[in-house]
Amino acid sequence: MPIIQTCYSPALYPLFEEPETIVVVVDIFRATSAICTALDNGVAKMIPVAGLDEARKYKEMGYMVAAERNAIKEEGFDLGNSPFDYLGDIVKGKTIAISTTNGTQAIEAAKSASTVVIGSFLNVSSLAEWLIIQQKNVLILCSGWKNKYNMEDSLFAGLLSLELLKQKEFETACDSTIAAGHLYNLAKDDMFTFLEYSSHRKRLKNLHLENDITYCLTLNTMTTIPIYFEGGLVSLTPEVLMQMGEESLVVSEKKS
Amino acid sequence: MPIIQTCYSPALYPLFEEPETIVVVVDIFRATSAICTALDNGVAKMIPVAGLDEARKYKEMGYMVAAERNAIKEEGFDLGNSPFDYLGDIVKGKTIAISTTNGTQAIEAAKSASTVVIGSFLNVSSLAEWLIIQQKNVLILCSGWKNKYNMEDSLFAGLLSLELLKQKEFETACDSTIAAGHLYNLAKDDMFTFLEYSSHRKRLKNLHLENDITYCLTLNTMTTIPIYFEGGLVSLTPEVLMQMGEESLVVSEKKS
Repeated sequence: MPIIQTCYSPALYPLFEEPETIVVVVDIFRATSAICTALDNGVAKMIPVAGLDEARKYKEMGYMVAAERNAIKEEGFDLGNSPFDYLGDIVKGKTIAISTTNGTQAIEAAKSASTVVIGSFLNVSSLAEWLIIQQKNVLILCSGWKNKYNMEDSLFAGLLSLELLKQKEFETACDSTIAAGHLYNLAKDDMFTFLEYSSHRKRLKNLHLENDITYCLTLNTMTTIPIYFEGGLVSLTPEVLMQMGEESLVVSEKKS
Repeated sequence: MPIIQTCYSPALYPLFEEPETIVVVVDIFRATSAICTALDNGVAKMIPVAGLDEARKYKEMGYMVAAERNAIKEEGFDLGNSPFDYLGDIVKGKTIAISTTNGTQAIEAAKSASTVVIGSFLNVSSLAEWLIIQQKNVLILCSGWKNKYNMEDSLFAGLLSLELLKQKEFETACDSTIAAGHLYNLAKDDMFTFLEYSSHRKRLKNLHLENDITYCLTLNTMTTIPIYFEGGLVSLTPEVLMQMGEESLVVSEKKS
């Protein structure tokens, strides 16, 4: 039976690295919520870049570029990592390079894995449904905050793992996963309030980004699943899987 | 106001390193429970050594040596890391070298800190009382399992942080600490059952070490606080603090 594990920090990812595992990268506030939003709104591809220098090179090459550090959009770039930056018509069809404090670092850490997908509360049920069909081991990689644990990514790990475990087609002996499940159960009736004392919620509140928080904590507003392919994140479709040569990665009937 | 932080893995310790912080190392199953038991039972000093080769050198030098890997006592050594190994008369007054899978690695990671003390459920209230008097920042360093998060060390971090926070003389914006507090509140009525699905509880159960589990989950059986001094762990006393030249580290009236 496939297993679920959770890694709380990109710095610990090497302890979990295993070629056949599907890695779900999550950065609830806000990189992976923004990436899901962007692809769902018709962005063609999101290219994660770790450093700002690399982001500047993409800018010079004429790309639309998003860059954020410490929750603030970097000077001289087109977009930040607020999901609301990706809801307009201007981004449709575009390939956008994106560099953020935590999320793109986590994607960078995981990109040697054969399959990397992107999770957020916005697409969690579709993602769970697809993972159940794969019947492969799953690692939830939390982006955290500068390699430290954070609460909101754990809550997502809790919900996703509970969704997988309830089908009795996965198992876990991973304490991080079990702990995350307990925390999600405590938080689920009102995640917004539960996160009141958490560090990044406070950081965003101080920046008057409470609308972002509410948006990022909303469940299942889309079925889009971003998948890493040829250096960037694209929407998972049967065509993409065929191009990846990943015949073993099937698409659910509902989505195909 | 001093702050409390929790680090879930010795591998992440460098992110938290700060010279003035008091580091509390914890490895509930079973290294720090054993070290507390040993010193409380009259062992003079416990010398943590990271590697088995170093442990063998201490053996050759005539020391009593404890060595454990993967919850099993290593062949050719005197003791393992079961607290019950440290309850007899044979250990009284001795200096014992100890090498374990996780706990001694965490102590090794932290020993550059100016003050390292050892926590377990056995001495948690005395430790909390002493930390409150110090009025310095506290970092709870969980040993985990081979650098991965574990549940039992988190529960300890939860209890200790709640004890410190309830006095309103500490504060925290550390998500790891907040999460650990939530988990302890969920578990506190029956930690033994709460840990039923956790990885190390299962590992010890399979080795028929359930008595060790019960022992290690018992609160406040002693007032002994092990402190790192001159290459080893000794009982914290006014004399030791004076020798350390740590006039700022006061001993509570009750203990002095």
